[in-house]
Amino acid sequence: MNENSPVAGDDAVAIARVLANDHVADIVEALNREPRETASELLCEIPFERVVDIFDQPELEGASELIEALPRDKASKLLAAMSVDRAADLVRDLDEPARSELLGNLATPLRATLLSILGYPEGSAASIMTTEYVSVPSSWTVGQTLDYIRKVERTRETVYAIYVVDPKTNVLLRATGLRRLIVGERDDLVMDIAPDRTPVTVSPLTDSEKVAQLISKYDLLAVPVVDHGKILGIVTVDDIIDIMTQETTEDVHRFGGMEALDEPYMKISFLAMIQKRAGWLCALFVSEMLTANAMQSYESELERAIVLTLFIPLIMSSGGNSGSQATSLVIRALALREISLGDWWRVALRELPTGLVLGSILGVVGVIRITLWQYFGLYDYGEHWHLIAATVGAALVGIVTFGSLAGSMLPFALKRIGFDPASASAPFVATLVDVTGLVIYFSVALVILRGTLL
Amino acid sequence: MNENSPVAGDDAVAIARVLANDHVADIVEALNREPRETASELLCEIPFERVVDIFDQPELEGASELIEALPRDKASKLLAAMSVDRAADLVRDLDEPARSELLGNLATPLRATLLSILGYPEGSAASIMTTEYVSVPSSWTVGQTLDYIRKVERTRETVYAIYVVDPKTNVLLRATGLRRLIVGERDDLVMDIAPDRTPVTVSPLTDSEKVAQLISKYDLLAVPVVDHGKILGIVTVDDIIDIMTQETTEDVHRFGGMEALDEPYMKISFLAMIQKRAGWLCALFVSEMLTANAMQSYESELERAIVLTLFIPLIMSSGGNSGSQATSLVIRALALREISLGDWWRVALRELPTGLVLGSILGVVGVIRITLWQYFGLYDYGEHWHLIAATVGAALVGIVTFGSLAGSMLPFALKRIGFDPASASAPFVATLVDVTGLVIYFSVALVILRGTLL
Repeated sequence: MNENSPVAGDDAVAIARVLANDHVADIVEALNREPRETASELLCEIPFERVVDIFDQPELEGASELIEALPRDKASKLLAAMSVDRAADLVRDLDEPARSELLGNLATPLRATLLSILGYPEGSAASIMTTEYVSVPSSWTVGQTLDYIRKVERTRETVYAIYVVDPKTNVLLRATGLRRLIVGERDDLVMDIAPDRTPVTVSPLTDSEKVAQLISKYDLLAVPVVDHGKILGIVTVDDIIDIMTQETTEDVHRFGGMEALDEPYMKISFLAMIQKRAGWLCALFVSEMLTANAMQSYESELERAIVLTLFIPLIMSSGGNSGSQATSLVIRALALREISLGDWWRVALRELPTGLVLGSILGVVGVIRITLWQYFGLYDYGEHWHLIAATVGAALVGIVTFGSLAGSMLPFALKRIGFDPASASAPFVATLVDVTGLVIYFSVALVILRGTLL
Repeated sequence: MNENSPVAGDDAVAIARVLANDHVADIVEALNREPRETASELLCEIPFERVVDIFDQPELEGASELIEALPRDKASKLLAAMSVDRAADLVRDLDEPARSELLGNLATPLRATLLSILGYPEGSAASIMTTEYVSVPSSWTVGQTLDYIRKVERTRETVYAIYVVDPKTNVLLRATGLRRLIVGERDDLVMDIAPDRTPVTVSPLTDSEKVAQLISKYDLLAVPVVDHGKILGIVTVDDIIDIMTQETTEDVHRFGGMEALDEPYMKISFLAMIQKRAGWLCALFVSEMLTANAMQSYESELERAIVLTLFIPLIMSSGGNSGSQATSLVIRALALREISLGDWWRVALRELPTGLVLGSILGVVGVIRITLWQYFGLYDYGEHWHLIAATVGAALVGIVTFGSLAGSMLPFALKRIGFDPASASAPFVATLVDVTGLVIYFSVALVILRGTLL
């Protein structure tokens, strides 16, 4: 492709062919691969209808910058033609003055809708809902509903979920699916063919993760966002899939001990990457400095029994590893609501014996290791080698138990004070356990080695 | 509730009321809370139609044990009435002889279908597909198709995705949605109202994670599993949501350094929990023993400069933390296909400068810490304290850079040899980096401190 005029000559023909046949998701992927200016130029060559489809895809990168580059009147037309939830996403990312200018050009009802969606906090059900759903009065028949759907189909994000409301109060009464309408008789009341139960709904401020759980649990195609009984909008299953993917990314990044990246790894700027990683790394580093303090306070013991230092890395890492296991288990169980905040003591009662058994297993392995090395002359731990072995073994029991307990309680503590439990990253747990691990190790050593080495 | 007869008297009335109105997902949740024997008893009181709905929910725990407890003829009727993909799941979990007995009781075509689904490897698209989809010949009109859907609706998992096949060869030609049929004229050919493009399909052996990605990318309600052009079955969006949730759980557990639990945290037996955790913990412990070997080989340096030991935990954890960050970034970028195996060198070229900058930041913080402590008399690092500070600073640059590089390359290496990159858990990376970290630290110390302390 010619770098200066990417859409000239043969390319234009090729692009036209792609646009006619390719799925819009593939076109978006192709646009994402181009530099932003090329993508901007390409968009000018594409028929308006298709541009609307493209901007409707949440996967389009830099959509707000692309829309800013368009002539204002075209951009406004685009916003009006897009699905409402995507338009709200876009406007949210727009900078001033483009934001006010574009909103000013919109028809008053649409502007009001967008502003009300934008008024809800990010991550809430209302902030990701679309107002383009199908609702009909309970007095309508199946035939009337089908005729109505035929008319409005093009302007609705989904027509598979149909909401039946009270004709006077507009309060949501029932939810049904298009498949039930198809099977029903034209003269049946839509109210009668809908399942006879209160629909699953969420409130505007429900967390989007909770919305995902409900959609997954009840196998829904959409869930209505309801305020005082009236529908404000719906959240559809494909929005939820995108949110689940994004949440997993955030959790993995946080669990790795860093701020979640909001851009793909290869696209984020070097500086942004350093910023996202350096903060946590420094915080962990500063906390970990406590280990140096702990070591300093045991300096005289260290000098008398230098052999103790050999096992410091081994012992510390075991505490970190057992803590990391416990944390990941509890984070996930909390996320899946297998356990709730009030279950902390039941978890503690499970982790205590688990930690003791795991610690004993590692302790035995550690004692065997030291005995073998001593026995085969691979290393000489001195005349009191069996006491050293006992110290290492006993310390491992204590540290693994403490690691399991601390690691499992940390997500509860974080959740209790309002943080995401997934922030309890492995490095965070390890740092917490490291200092305590040193204290446990040297305390055990003082007890077992007093009168001999110490 | 009376422990001995949980469904007697008033309870029976209460349960009947729940069954009539509650969503099946709520009933499943209630059953999951009961001990298995009570659940089994309760199931006998529930009308057959409702039992089918209950067993169709993948969330039902111990479904294979529950079906084994039923009389064989009822169990066979249940398997026949369930959706095919769930029936296959259930049969997969059944033990002999129940499995053969139940399969033997089924009608030949259903048995053949189940056995063919069971023949595909776990985690493949075909192993999770259902054969209950809607496909029509391309010669049919919209009216014919709608009449057909009306007739078969009850027996199909979804009727929203409609597949148009060649009437002679049965080869898949087009995919369309029920909404297009509703809008079309009854006399239109179904082929003409379908979007004019090759449908998105997967092959029977496509990995279920890849299926999830396609459904998410193209916002599909279902994707057909196709072999030699013909549809074998479809995978629906709600199956994919369940799989995404399960994959996330597995990844979080693996990332925490343990085998993924396949049961909820509070339900898994104590012994199974120990087994899942002890294996990895021991493996990491044994690898980490190398740190003891590394320390032993530097014993004479340690004796001469005991002050060096003070910073060992700090330095080792920094390597582990930076490695953990890099690993989590790369695991996620690989999972989202932002990068592929061949991009390893581009990632290395990003991680090298990132590691150097992050290491320098930590190095400066470390030097400041030592200087401050020395200056304010909080600790006396001896006359060569500035050399100690230089050693710690330089070692941090080396270790963080190595940690970032090793952590980012490990997922590539695992993927290359056929493992899940998510197995590159934080503890695994930390263990890898710990030994190298010690070697780097003491090597730097030997260079900087030679002639003074060492």
